[in-house]
Amino acid sequence: MRELRKHADLILRAALEAANPAKAVERFIELRGDVLFAGRKRYPLALYKRILVIGAGKASAAMAAALEKRLARRITAGLLNVKYGHTAALKHVKLNECGHPVPDAAGVTGSGRIAELARSATEEDLVICLLSGGGSALLPAPAEGITLADKQETTRLLLACGATIHEINAVRKHLSALKGGQLARLAWPATVITLILSDVIGDNLDVIASGPTAPDSSTFDTAVGVLRKYEILGKVPPAVRHRLEDGVKGKIAETPKPGAQELSRTENLVIGSNRLAVDAAQKQARDLGYRTLILSTTIEGETRDVAGVHAAIAREIYDAGRPLRTPACIISGGETTVTLKGAGKGGRNQEFALAGALALNGQPNTLLVSIGTDGNDGPTDAAGAYADSNTLHRAAKLHLNAAALLANNDSYHFFEALGDLVKTGPTNTNVMDVRLVLVGAKK
Amino acid sequence: MRELRKHADLILRAALEAANPAKAVERFIELRGDVLFAGRKRYPLALYKRILVIGAGKASAAMAAALEKRLARRITAGLLNVKYGHTAALKHVKLNECGHPVPDAAGVTGSGRIAELARSATEEDLVICLLSGGGSALLPAPAEGITLADKQETTRLLLACGATIHEINAVRKHLSALKGGQLARLAWPATVITLILSDVIGDNLDVIASGPTAPDSSTFDTAVGVLRKYEILGKVPPAVRHRLEDGVKGKIAETPKPGAQELSRTENLVIGSNRLAVDAAQKQARDLGYRTLILSTTIEGETRDVAGVHAAIAREIYDAGRPLRTPACIISGGETTVTLKGAGKGGRNQEFALAGALALNGQPNTLLVSIGTDGNDGPTDAAGAYADSNTLHRAAKLHLNAAALLANNDSYHFFEALGDLVKTGPTNTNVMDVRLVLVGAKK
Repeated sequence: MRELRKHADLILRAALEAANPAKAVERFIELRGDVLFAGRKRYPLALYKRILVIGAGKASAAMAAALEKRLARRITAGLLNVKYGHTAALKHVKLNECGHPVPDAAGVTGSGRIAELARSATEEDLVICLLSGGGSALLPAPAEGITLADKQETTRLLLACGATIHEINAVRKHLSALKGGQLARLAWPATVITLILSDVIGDNLDVIASGPTAPDSSTFDTAVGVLRKYEILGKVPPAVRHRLEDGVKGKIAETPKPGAQELSRTENLVIGSNRLAVDAAQKQARDLGYRTLILSTTIEGETRDVAGVHAAIAREIYDAGRPLRTPACIISGGETTVTLKGAGKGGRNQEFALAGALALNGQPNTLLVSIGTDGNDGPTDAAGAYADSNTLHRAAKLHLNAAALLANNDSYHFFEALGDLVKTGPTNTNVMDVRLVLVGAKK
Repeated sequence: MRELRKHADLILRAALEAANPAKAVERFIELRGDVLFAGRKRYPLALYKRILVIGAGKASAAMAAALEKRLARRITAGLLNVKYGHTAALKHVKLNECGHPVPDAAGVTGSGRIAELARSATEEDLVICLLSGGGSALLPAPAEGITLADKQETTRLLLACGATIHEINAVRKHLSALKGGQLARLAWPATVITLILSDVIGDNLDVIASGPTAPDSSTFDTAVGVLRKYEILGKVPPAVRHRLEDGVKGKIAETPKPGAQELSRTENLVIGSNRLAVDAAQKQARDLGYRTLILSTTIEGETRDVAGVHAAIAREIYDAGRPLRTPACIISGGETTVTLKGAGKGGRNQEFALAGALALNGQPNTLLVSIGTDGNDGPTDAAGAYADSNTLHRAAKLHLNAAALLANNDSYHFFEALGDLVKTGPTNTNVMDVRLVLVGAKK
């Protein structure tokens, strides 16, 4: 088991390194001579008078620090909205600390100044926008005539009637001054490069931080349709209703749509995501000699049942040599959930490992591990936990009843007693969860 | 979508054909000249004076009919315990109808006569034993001094304290006269071929029908240990306790262990199982041009979360071309469960499809389907249901609220209205469930 554990550590480390905000910026941004390379595009800096840095998100300060390292003194000015305490030492880019997950007045003020900076940009400027998890709450900019309280009340009503996240976003973008591509429109005709650390399933550009520089395919019609569908058009604050109805009548400009000219100089680049983290894990696993299979990067659902499926695949590999022959490494991403029934301490990743240990039932030469890439699984100081062939046996010796602790959602105390928690400390990033199943040769 | 549906039908048909009891017997048993081929083994019939057929299970009559077809008039005599109504027209093998899932007196009487037939066999006889789902309840033979009621009460106590199926089986085998290899021991020194249709996860020979012809690695010590662990040694009927304690003291013969001479002439052959059904599905899918991947044949857990994982894999295939490039067919087996919260009508397979439709959320060129191979999903006349890219759209037109029907466990009425139920009628077999995910090229 010691070797599997060592390998799992190396594979997880590779995943976390791919998700590290500074390293992600360094991987995608490079200055060679006077040319800035961003992903596959080249930007000759001689074309630009100013380089402005704007954006928001919990990891944005760390991204800006790496950007300053790459661009040295080329950055003219910049302002980012970050969560209280999520700062870094910067020379050219200013930080405005504000409220998250509940937006506050500091966020609104900062958003206004970010909007001003974007609006000041001309055809001769390059705007670099840094977005990461939390960017939506950290960039609160209600549209004209709408208050933050109006937006929050509308969101509350939508959540209460079971609207999907896509429906909620369609409404919110049409109550916002910056979301749904409107920040990029403000910067037009400047060139915009947006560097994105994605914390959402599927990496949809219009979902991450509500897509301030991405085209929005929803319309005022969509937004009103959603409120009608859930029969809350009469319940939202009057200012909200009036704005949306004015929008439908064409009195207010729509958000920029796919193909809009105002976005034609904007490049959105995902530099960190669950998918990229899982790719890095796969590469490391291959380098260690494993046959690998990425199951999916968009796995959601009750964590104990998701763990059961992973354990069933481990069983099939061990018993029947499929879907992979050993040594095999199955990798999956996404973010599961826990329906709390007990009063224990734990998180979705630790509970995955505990349910996985029970489902593995001592199968030899097998290890499961799940971690939250932010290093913070539920209300605990662990990122996740390991489960392997010996877990139940070792637990029994310590008189730990795995099934009872699982029933009480008490995975933390189970793995704490075994010394099998994964502790990374805060990673200052979040690309959701990474799970591994390692199966060695049959014994 | 029509093509995906047609392909799914063909693939499911191949799976069901592999699970068909008669066809399974015909696939594994053949008489060429005077030599009986069973799997990879040859049995020259000149060596045997008599061929006796014994066994139990819901599909055993159908298996016997195929066997009579293969062996013509070579069968000397036979007796099977089958469920009331689960009969077939046989010439040489007699059927004894009895109670299932609750064993009854007819079952006990029949088991006694089956034991007599086995005991009558000599070195010059060939015994063919037919086992299928339900075989454990249909072969009730309490050990000497134990009544059927004693066994049932013990099982009830074990279930109530959360014992695992392995623990329960260890106890039951040591209260039985035939289970745990004891039927094969009765037939010793005759040659025994056991043909098995497996309805359990993992196809463990000692679990299917409680393994009457398979070695038993559990002991009287194991059985007493289980009762001690759950602190019910003092609560089970006195006859049970006395027998187990006598067994520990060596006063009663153990069940035959792996390597026992009394099993050295016994061959256990799994001729139908989830694994074989899934293999057949994979072959058919490949023949239709799909890239295929068998996820696992042992998937259990809450069906809606298992569906979520399957949909996440479909999403990854469609968006990122992995774990397979399109056209892709993911196949999985096992048996999921439903935690009933609503009052609707449905089954685990139909609910899989409904949750899958919601998770797919209209992803183009994608189909999910799940069926129970017995043709009977929950208390409905359907085997399962299809969900595809158009399901939610078509449902909305019919004012069917997929999320609300799922919350009410009402998958049957959802798919009945759409005409998307899979109806096979009773298949007279059961190798658990088969699920498919088909993903065509990106649109």
